[in-house]
Amino acid sequence: MWALALGAFVPVSWVLAILAAPGVFLFAVAGLAIVPLAWFLGLATEELGKHAGPGVGGLLNATFGNATEMIIALFALASGLHEVVKASLTGSIIGNILLVLGLSMLAGGLRNKRQVYSREASGIQTTMLLLAVIGLVMPELYSLSIGLPSTMTVAEKDRIVHDVSLAVAGILFLAYLFGLWFSLRTHRDVFNPVAEVHTPPRWSVRASVAILLVATAIVAIESELLVRSIEAARASLGLTELFVGVIIVAIVGNAAEHGSAVIMAIRNKMDLSVAIATTSTTQIALFVAPVLVFASVVLGNFLTLNFEIFELAAIALSAAILASVVADGQSNWYEGALLVMVYAIIGVAFFYHPTVGA
Amino acid sequence: MWALALGAFVPVSWVLAILAAPGVFLFAVAGLAIVPLAWFLGLATEELGKHAGPGVGGLLNATFGNATEMIIALFALASGLHEVVKASLTGSIIGNILLVLGLSMLAGGLRNKRQVYSREASGIQTTMLLLAVIGLVMPELYSLSIGLPSTMTVAEKDRIVHDVSLAVAGILFLAYLFGLWFSLRTHRDVFNPVAEVHTPPRWSVRASVAILLVATAIVAIESELLVRSIEAARASLGLTELFVGVIIVAIVGNAAEHGSAVIMAIRNKMDLSVAIATTSTTQIALFVAPVLVFASVVLGNFLTLNFEIFELAAIALSAAILASVVADGQSNWYEGALLVMVYAIIGVAFFYHPTVGA
Amino acid sequence: MWALALGAFVPVSWVLAILAAPGVFLFAVAGLAIVPLAWFLGLATEELGKHAGPGVGGLLNATFGNATEMIIALFALASGLHEVVKASLTGSIIGNILLVLGLSMLAGGLRNKRQVYSREASGIQTTMLLLAVIGLVMPELYSLSIGLPSTMTVAEKDRIVHDVSLAVAGILFLAYLFGLWFSLRTHRDVFNPVAEVHTPPRWSVRASVAILLVATAIVAIESELLVRSIEAARASLGLTELFVGVIIVAIVGNAAEHGSAVIMAIRNKMDLSVAIATTSTTQIALFVAPVLVFASVVLGNFLTLNFEIFELAAIALSAAILASVVADGQSNWYEGALLVMVYAIIGVAFFYHPTVGA
Repeated sequence: MWALALGAFVPVSWVLAILAAPGVFLFAVAGLAIVPLAWFLGLATEELGKHAGPGVGGLLNATFGNATEMIIALFALASGLHEVVKASLTGSIIGNILLVLGLSMLAGGLRNKRQVYSREASGIQTTMLLLAVIGLVMPELYSLSIGLPSTMTVAEKDRIVHDVSLAVAGILFLAYLFGLWFSLRTHRDVFNPVAEVHTPPRWSVRASVAILLVATAIVAIESELLVRSIEAARASLGLTELFVGVIIVAIVGNAAEHGSAVIMAIRNKMDLSVAIATTSTTQIALFVAPVLVFASVVLGNFLTLNFEIFELAAIALSAAILASVVADGQSNWYEGALLVMVYAIIGVAFFYHPTVGA
Repeated sequence: MWALALGAFVPVSWVLAILAAPGVFLFAVAGLAIVPLAWFLGLATEELGKHAGPGVGGLLNATFGNATEMIIALFALASGLHEVVKASLTGSIIGNILLVLGLSMLAGGLRNKRQVYSREASGIQTTMLLLAVIGLVMPELYSLSIGLPSTMTVAEKDRIVHDVSLAVAGILFLAYLFGLWFSLRTHRDVFNPVAEVHTPPRWSVRASVAILLVATAIVAIESELLVRSIEAARASLGLTELFVGVIIVAIVGNAAEHGSAVIMAIRNKMDLSVAIATTSTTQIALFVAPVLVFASVVLGNFLTLNFEIFELAAIALSAAILASVVADGQSNWYEGALLVMVYAIIGVAFFYHPTVGA
Repeated sequence: MWALALGAFVPVSWVLAILAAPGVFLFAVAGLAIVPLAWFLGLATEELGKHAGPGVGGLLNATFGNATEMIIALFALASGLHEVVKASLTGSIIGNILLVLGLSMLAGGLRNKRQVYSREASGIQTTMLLLAVIGLVMPELYSLSIGLPSTMTVAEKDRIVHDVSLAVAGILFLAYLFGLWFSLRTHRDVFNPVAEVHTPPRWSVRASVAILLVATAIVAIESELLVRSIEAARASLGLTELFVGVIIVAIVGNAAEHGSAVIMAIRNKMDLSVAIATTSTTQIALFVAPVLVFASVVLGNFLTLNFEIFELAAIALSAAILASVVADGQSNWYEGALLVMVYAIIGVAFFYHPTVGA
């Protein structure tokens, strides 16, 4: 089976890492090794979804997928690479909206003429994302809007941007907690439509969870090898840091969601596919970003949320096009292709961007 | 009855005002006095709504609520406090969208799992608001875009921003008049859905109108006492002027809509609740703002519509999240909570904003 | 018949052009001459639409209408008038969304209380337009975002903006090609609703095509006379170049779509009317704009896509209000009036704009 064959790349990547092989090779091998893992993640999620309903399945999947990103970001944060952390947050948000959802709609739409999904669930996710956009825009807008008043020193202004970021992070985290309460308690039905056809599960809950955990752990290891080797690959391929953070780290970090969401779309389980992509997006914005801000306080190395204008525009425009695409609760291959092309446009702009805004 | 008990605060506030009591006390008492008045306004509006349908009821309520704001703004305008006037317009718009509608959906959604309202009516209000956003953005965008060309003096540029503001005000006012024609003549049914369950009215039209007028008059008096005492309260509590204008004056000025809209939402009359919040918003933008511009011409003290970037972003992002929330014609407590949290984010940013943009 | 009577202006305009009459006269006569031609275009399109379905009819009409604009823009490009080319692209996009669609909904809504059209078709067009907005925003945002880094010369930055523009143009053109495949092959039904009432065609396909071609050819000639005379008319009427490019050239260039779309709306064929306006918009953004960029490479006179902030804001806000208006798949006169008033607001701002951003 191709999945098991590709699985052979996992031990190969470990051998290469131990032998300190050239980055480009490690990069390619680790990337290939992630493919079958993502496939197993997709299967395990689908099995769990049969037991628990697509909402909880989507939540689980997004949590496992984002654990990878959270670990990578925490390492970068501890090393003081704040711009890279923010770039990878930006990249994960736009990557989930444009690339994961786009490829899902594209692949699913090529096999099924029209695919339908819950308009209510995707509408609430869109509103959550807009809340996040407003929260992420405000600190930078604040910083730009006041300039540096004559009554204020640079240190005073920095402290205020710091306070605004912390308050925003608190509100975003609160929105996340309320969102969990909403989706798991008061309105379970929104993310668990009864209309879904139930095929009997093949794996038990225990087996599914075990496979999910093991696959996620190996994905995390492979992701780290990939990220470690990216720096060398970046230098030899001549890419900018912003491009690596926004595009490459994000694609790798979201490989798991990718695999699962596309598989679900091809199987015409569009509710689950859309849930994976949108839940993952809002979880990055409302859970990972605030937790990183809180962690930075503990680390004594404060992470402000003043993203670059360029990143904010990319996030806001992605949210706008998401709202337009999911407005009618149905998708086709062309809507997927449009999302992927928007990703390409943003990717081109980041590709040429000379440096992370100092 | 608690309403009558709180009503005792009305004469107390008058005594405090006459005795020139410390601002903080007057502030608190006048604030408490407004609560039962808002409740009576809600009742009277509901009774009138039973006679006239929710559209006309919403219009009446918004008119009475905004009369208060208009009076306060005219006083501020006559005193040359242009930035405070614009800040209170901004605050009323975002307050109605985010706080009034948010609390309504939150309170209503805690008692009713899902609440439905006319998608057509809220859609048209959203489009009207977008027209207002474009109208309010253009003068500042114009001003920023041209900078100060070498072929133009500061006085010439000011005159052009003046002319653009006046033309925009004229168009917004025209949109308001057409909107009245639309909602009261050609498409009455949009804002008067027949599906609404009709309970027999308890008060006559005459009694409802009388109570509405008296309660509005007392709300206006109490609002003025509150605003007068805010300056003293502000100084002792250490708040900025922009925060006071955008957040506090707006909450007070919209207390009436607040009470009515939340009561309607709890009673599951979501059509009326949404009508109050959105009609009030568009009336501020398409009626109060232009009238203030026209009044400023008469007063010889011209009010340009070049809002601060920060205010424009808050208005535009509020409009975007409103569009996302009302897109499906139904609401739940979490959508309400998200709106309130967006209000909190914007409130935090304005709280730290050092000064009104000179 | 009035159409034939007005048709007499066609030869009059040719005589005036040969006699080199004052520009203001030629301007007025050519403008009047276009009216009956647009009417014939509308008839011929309707007849073809009966044979081929509204989707193909809308495509044909947009193609013929935009051929005019393409020819004008190519002339301006060859003369190095890059800002005028970009201004006319901006003007065509906002003109089709706001003026053509607005007048259609207004005129149609005055005769029919509510008009319905395909939500799916207009939703996809809106998403395509958002892709275009993102594509057109990125080069300028990129240019603003990086400023002029110390590590880069002006020539290097210009070359990068050039490369980004070319890549964006390529992606937009790809989106156009995929869109053709989508609307003409895989999802013909989206733009050819079967519910449409089919009246028997009066003209044959051959006669319709002949009339379409002849009318388009004469429209092109008249448009050129109009554009040639606009410069003289502009000088004597004291208008700015940006206003002429964005407003006047665009109104003239879209006269054909105008006539057709309004006629279809009045006849309550709202699907065809919306198709003409939105297809024309996306065709300008995804077909005409990229082709002009490619042509500029051939001409050795590169056209970058870094539009002015003012133009980008106008396009983005027009897209937002379009999304809001078509969200429910129905229209009324007031929604049309709101679109026209947004056009008026933007027109006012451009009217006062002192110069094309150098």
